[in-house]
Amino acid sequence: MKFVTGTTQKTIGYHTIAEGGLNNQSVTVHGAVHTLREMGGICFLTLRMADGSVQCVCSPETLPPGLCEECAVELTGTLRAEPRAPGGWEIAAEQVAILSRPAAPMPVCLGKRALRIHLDAELPLRPVLLRESRRRAVFRIQEGLARAFREYLTGEGFTEIHTPKIVSAGAEGGSNIFRLDYFGKKAYLAQSPQVYKQTMVGVYERVYEVGPVFRAEKHATGRHLNEYTGLDFEMGYIRSFYDMIEMETGFLQSAMALLEREYRQELTLLGVELPGTASIPCLRFDQAKRLAAEKYGYPIRDPYDLEPEEESRIGQYVKEALGSDFVFITHYPSKKRPFYTMDDPEDSRYTLSFDLLFRGLEVTTGGQRIHDYRQQVAKMEARGMDPADFSSYLMIHRYGMPPHGGLGIGLERLTMQLCGLDNIRQASLFPRDRSRLDP
Amino acid sequence: MKFVTGTTQKTIGYHTIAEGGLNNQSVTVHGAVHTLREMGGICFLTLRMADGSVQCVCSPETLPPGLCEECAVELTGTLRAEPRAPGGWEIAAEQVAILSRPAAPMPVCLGKRALRIHLDAELPLRPVLLRESRRRAVFRIQEGLARAFREYLTGEGFTEIHTPKIVSAGAEGGSNIFRLDYFGKKAYLAQSPQVYKQTMVGVYERVYEVGPVFRAEKHATGRHLNEYTGLDFEMGYIRSFYDMIEMETGFLQSAMALLEREYRQELTLLGVELPGTASIPCLRFDQAKRLAAEKYGYPIRDPYDLEPEEESRIGQYVKEALGSDFVFITHYPSKKRPFYTMDDPEDSRYTLSFDLLFRGLEVTTGGQRIHDYRQQVAKMEARGMDPADFSSYLMIHRYGMPPHGGLGIGLERLTMQLCGLDNIRQASLFPRDRSRLDP
Repeated sequence: MKFVTGTTQKTIGYHTIAEGGLNNQSVTVHGAVHTLREMGGICFLTLRMADGSVQCVCSPETLPPGLCEECAVELTGTLRAEPRAPGGWEIAAEQVAILSRPAAPMPVCLGKRALRIHLDAELPLRPVLLRESRRRAVFRIQEGLARAFREYLTGEGFTEIHTPKIVSAGAEGGSNIFRLDYFGKKAYLAQSPQVYKQTMVGVYERVYEVGPVFRAEKHATGRHLNEYTGLDFEMGYIRSFYDMIEMETGFLQSAMALLEREYRQELTLLGVELPGTASIPCLRFDQAKRLAAEKYGYPIRDPYDLEPEEESRIGQYVKEALGSDFVFITHYPSKKRPFYTMDDPEDSRYTLSFDLLFRGLEVTTGGQRIHDYRQQVAKMEARGMDPADFSSYLMIHRYGMPPHGGLGIGLERLTMQLCGLDNIRQASLFPRDRSRLDP
Repeated sequence: MKFVTGTTQKTIGYHTIAEGGLNNQSVTVHGAVHTLREMGGICFLTLRMADGSVQCVCSPETLPPGLCEECAVELTGTLRAEPRAPGGWEIAAEQVAILSRPAAPMPVCLGKRALRIHLDAELPLRPVLLRESRRRAVFRIQEGLARAFREYLTGEGFTEIHTPKIVSAGAEGGSNIFRLDYFGKKAYLAQSPQVYKQTMVGVYERVYEVGPVFRAEKHATGRHLNEYTGLDFEMGYIRSFYDMIEMETGFLQSAMALLEREYRQELTLLGVELPGTASIPCLRFDQAKRLAAEKYGYPIRDPYDLEPEEESRIGQYVKEALGSDFVFITHYPSKKRPFYTMDDPEDSRYTLSFDLLFRGLEVTTGGQRIHDYRQQVAKMEARGMDPADFSSYLMIHRYGMPPHGGLGIGLERLTMQLCGLDNIRQASLFPRDRSRLDP
């Protein structure tokens, strides 16, 4: 009888090579043949490994017959420091074994220094184009952001939750919701974990969730997806909505530190300059609108709305006047915020809520929620909503909730702004938009 | 202008108290009044905090008017070791301030030592019943399992991915799939991230995803959910499917160690005995069926299927004969496995695949996948499938994939078996079954 003991295969990856301890030693590595070219009788093979690529030199007799790009291989050779090789390391191959072969040559050359393809041509080929170095780097950085979110919040006493994505009603209301048939009943795809994360504040005080969010928005822009990854948290016993703002700032600081520490290779490849996060300015909604309009000389069209162009202008203002890539915009107008948002007791036309703009684009929406039962019922009624439709949700207010609030970050938007991408589809592995459902 | 610097509120939680360094000191804590009862002129208040509860004693004059259970309070008093108090600590309250009040008393008493309610009565009240200690403990342990999965795999060189849940076709096939309207097109909810995680092996070699999985299964059992959390991984350059089995074993070892280290309070409360994971037996499908049938004296009805009762019997056999709570069942019949599963070259009626049974219940399905383009096309055709319907998926095989495989773990099933729950609905915060869509 066979028994297993959890012994996993230890392989040599790019990071092990880059650490330098194996210089002049024989190594066995595996990976895909990223590029293969002959120069003066010698073959240069770029081996794509899990965490980076390394140049290998092979004599013609070392090359197995039929070796081509995108073959999976196992390669044994001597590792040596080689300043002329990308990354500074090279393997002089002594043996190359083919583990698997493609059935056809790649439709594009992955080895090009900057592989520029129109998005409409790129997206159908995504399954293989993601193998290109810069694209790989984008989603490694995205991993780092989600990882930092979880690790930071775990350290701050948050509990991770998993809440349903098939729901009986939309939390945000409106028509931007996908409908489905659920065993003969009407159901929807969750527009946010709002109801559930508030509920779980009554259980664990501080909770977070990383999961998909669905928005049936019809507009096709470079900053909207119909399915995205939400980084959501919610916390109780707050003194004001600045507690959430401070928590997000702490997360951003921690994320930039993690990227700097463990994702340097990817940042360098993409030329990403990490934004400063030591101190982030907060501007009131009306104040931010006024400052940007005055500075750039345009009229304010709607005092209760913030259009994308205005967000961009505010981002520009904050960068020029305060040197910050980030700005929290606070006190959004009540009519623009959902029914669970707490109004500002000093001026009920505004709310105790905020957005975070990063380089002129909204990447977060958050705020303090109503915790008092009667206050929540009254706000629903004032909006023409029937509290009876929300009895499961109102149960938490009815039986007692601490003062609380939270926020939701769009992971793809954060990735996009950080990496300087010009379309959010470049920050989603397999983007969903109005016309795209495949791959 | 206001600036924020990431300064978060540091509060004293249960763990800080339990560490003992604050004995005989004045502390200020916050939480919900879990229970409140008077005994001989003194009030005993159990304060429910984020990470545990502490007993507080209050004189009548310390109690603010209107204090009741589920009030959110801030409480200042002297902490002292008190062997008679649950957990060994007590706060002699000097000041209690009410932060918020419920509008009605709780429908059930949360303070009962074992709050037993029929599931049909429990589930509608979940939003507030989750505040009860044992229920809180279950989902803390669930957090620990998901956290261990991510942390272990990150350490093994895996990259986290986020893949679409709205898809154009089902990976597992069959009728167990939710349909939705996607801007006038037919779409489905992903039954697994199978296609995408295989695709990403071509990019990062080793990937994992934690996310929702949707199954429109009509049967109502104590071990099925229509939406659950999948812990999925996929890895390339494998030598055999035992590489995935070893990796899962490593994860289980790491998970048990994390729970022992950081979730001791919850394990004790639930009376959970952590299973041994040092060495896990592997039995072939046909062998496991035969051994259990022989030992317990029942006939094998279908040599190509494994019914729940048989899984349970095999679990019993492995526990009694080998002392193990876990067993990997390998070499499932080909006709029971999806089209992407690699057949055993030594006997093509069976596959290079496996399930993990934990205390007699399947908690994982995995296996080696076909990586060769022609082989995959041939298997599709043999099953009457049209390869043209899978062109995005087959792109990865066509342009080259390493030998690879992976697995999917049901987080709720793992939680259920570990905590000894008798219905999977107890291991899902807000379960989705055929008749339940709310809360």
